[in-house]
Amino acid sequence: MTGRHPGGPEVFGPVDPPARLLMGPGPVNADPRVLRALSAPLVGQFDPVMTGYMNETMVLYRQVFRTGNEATFLVDGTSRAGIEAALVSLITPGDRVLVPSFGRFGQLLCEIAERCGAEVHAIEAPWGEVFTPDQIEAAVVAVRPKVLAIVQGDTSTTMCQPLEEIGGICRQHGVLLYSDVTASLGGNAFEMDAWGLDAVTAGLQKCLSGPSGSAPISLSDRAVEIVRARSSVEAGIRGDDRVLPPPARIRSNYFDLGMILDYWGPRRLNHHTEATSMLYAARECARILVEEGLEAAVERHRLHGAAMLAGVQGLGLEPFGDLGHKMHNIVGVQIPDGIDGDAVRGELLESFGVEIGTSFGPLHGRIWRIGTMGYNARTDAVLETLTVFERVLRIHGVSVPAGGGVEGAQAVYACAGT
Amino acid sequence: MTGRHPGGPEVFGPVDPPARLLMGPGPVNADPRVLRALSAPLVGQFDPVMTGYMNETMVLYRQVFRTGNEATFLVDGTSRAGIEAALVSLITPGDRVLVPSFGRFGQLLCEIAERCGAEVHAIEAPWGEVFTPDQIEAAVVAVRPKVLAIVQGDTSTTMCQPLEEIGGICRQHGVLLYSDVTASLGGNAFEMDAWGLDAVTAGLQKCLSGPSGSAPISLSDRAVEIVRARSSVEAGIRGDDRVLPPPARIRSNYFDLGMILDYWGPRRLNHHTEATSMLYAARECARILVEEGLEAAVERHRLHGAAMLAGVQGLGLEPFGDLGHKMHNIVGVQIPDGIDGDAVRGELLESFGVEIGTSFGPLHGRIWRIGTMGYNARTDAVLETLTVFERVLRIHGVSVPAGGGVEGAQAVYACAGT
Repeated sequence: MTGRHPGGPEVFGPVDPPARLLMGPGPVNADPRVLRALSAPLVGQFDPVMTGYMNETMVLYRQVFRTGNEATFLVDGTSRAGIEAALVSLITPGDRVLVPSFGRFGQLLCEIAERCGAEVHAIEAPWGEVFTPDQIEAAVVAVRPKVLAIVQGDTSTTMCQPLEEIGGICRQHGVLLYSDVTASLGGNAFEMDAWGLDAVTAGLQKCLSGPSGSAPISLSDRAVEIVRARSSVEAGIRGDDRVLPPPARIRSNYFDLGMILDYWGPRRLNHHTEATSMLYAARECARILVEEGLEAAVERHRLHGAAMLAGVQGLGLEPFGDLGHKMHNIVGVQIPDGIDGDAVRGELLESFGVEIGTSFGPLHGRIWRIGTMGYNARTDAVLETLTVFERVLRIHGVSVPAGGGVEGAQAVYACAGT
Repeated sequence: MTGRHPGGPEVFGPVDPPARLLMGPGPVNADPRVLRALSAPLVGQFDPVMTGYMNETMVLYRQVFRTGNEATFLVDGTSRAGIEAALVSLITPGDRVLVPSFGRFGQLLCEIAERCGAEVHAIEAPWGEVFTPDQIEAAVVAVRPKVLAIVQGDTSTTMCQPLEEIGGICRQHGVLLYSDVTASLGGNAFEMDAWGLDAVTAGLQKCLSGPSGSAPISLSDRAVEIVRARSSVEAGIRGDDRVLPPPARIRSNYFDLGMILDYWGPRRLNHHTEATSMLYAARECARILVEEGLEAAVERHRLHGAAMLAGVQGLGLEPFGDLGHKMHNIVGVQIPDGIDGDAVRGELLESFGVEIGTSFGPLHGRIWRIGTMGYNARTDAVLETLTVFERVLRIHGVSVPAGGGVEGAQAVYACAGT
């Protein structure tokens, strides 16, 4: 072996993770149904069974995104792979892109669009707030972008940007609307077609109860037309298809959505080898959500999110940000003065197996983030978290009302008759 | 629901793939140990258990790649995601890249390097042959590239390019050597450090017995230095780190290997959310290989590959290409005149559950490709395949010696004393 392993092979033991209740900003615990789907045997890439599963996955995600878009499929990578695939395929270097940013994931859209060669114009809302339609429209008029890119829910601030009116504004001004809905999809209302979005991408590890590693995506016909005009079929399987010169040609092969569409669509041209196990997972995530019903899932997240918020307030803690625009599936909690937030998180994880989230940038050290998402948007998960949170806060010297967390949550459940 | 689903939700059944024996060019059947690892519960992204698994995965892949490189980790995507990550991180637009291409996957390296903005110089070997060191050196001297990019094994032609001498040539001329070893790793000898490679990427779906969707990668210190000089820490988690202007700045966020290294390394800076289940799979694939021992795994692939070749010849069929440079884990088989290759493949799959491969480009319709890789490099899998192949050939009117396939293979096993 190598010089670093003079004593022979190092093999380690099998994967054997401890029990965890993941109540942070995601990943959260996967639904056991998704874990079972992951362990299904593989089939060949062009086996009719496999292409059948791909087609069914498209049908399922059309329902999840609430769209009739034919171009609804998966990008093989984490949620940010989906973001980059959408932006690099839509943006020709030099294009103006407007990013209304209200947290770390808005900044990420700027960063990715810049690397795609866009001329990026960002407008910023204070962390903990969202934009009004008027603010967005004024920026659209001033910048005249080709693409407006915005996240729906930004876990860094817990805010959920209303998108209902933005699609109309974009159509009126001839702008393509892209949104990253990774953190919000399934837990907050989202209507791709009714709201007029052109491109949307997501991930599995939040309200969809799956592992990170597959990025559902949908493109409107308008978006497909732009992508198709920039796409090339690669050498090796190209017949008489043309190759564009840069900068029109899409800068990435892996993220060329035109080629990925030719693989998912009736041409079935070889591109990557579809990540079979992650496709099984993504398909099962969507089956669970569509079986429950999108409205029911959103209502479940609303209920358990409200219970967690009331519980946190019942412990005498202050939530963060504009509660009128909080995502259902996460709450920011201000860390009391003099308390070491990471020590509290460490004790929750090590002694109780419960994970809550830290935070980024200007909020680092100032708030915890507690999620109630996907499989974990459940009464028992909320009550267990609040119980051990109270215990650990007291150990760390925070004066909290005995049982205040659970009582706060239970009052919400009582009102809802659950 | 949407207009396309007026009848209410479409949910489909759970994933329930039929039994398949996957003897094509990959994906092949995953080892059941890998399928079990995939279904392990998730843990949080920065849980010490998770970062521990990441560290162990690095140690395991150092052994698989035969390297002491600290920078040995996973890219979250299929094997071509690994290729693009390596090339987009190493290549500054305008750099000269030399690609000695001997099949479809050499063409893919050209295609990806072009999209990274490289000035690509390809030299081509006829399909079914490989390059001599002299041919490579002459091209290096003529082109004076920054990077030489080459696949080790090209499944499109079944050829395995000897790399032993190319590292020395590259060092002597100050050229970085990158190789895609997806198709060959684990089944054919590979020595990253001893052969002087600077960057190497792979996938799980061939001799590693896993699903597609995770790309192991390793970078020499020289390659890390180049990547680090081009990498930026993204806005949102950036402290005082600098941002480079284009073209020096890496064009991709998702594939910025410097940022991915900062996530896998001691800084533990947030980048993507690691694909937990695929990491479990990749870790188990490497555990299986390191337990068996790399030499033993290569010898196993050599044996079963030789048996399959002898079996095919025992059926009176002609293998394709230079047998002195065939990968151990795949054989090309010339389709007899007048036989519809796809009809034979269809019957093998539908009636017998056995998959063999079609082929690309100039070989399309001319050869089948039969793999013996990973979990399927086993005596029973070889003999079963040859038995049903004989049966189906006869159904399709090919005159084949009764039992000739199995006898050919068994003669190889008898010689080996197995």
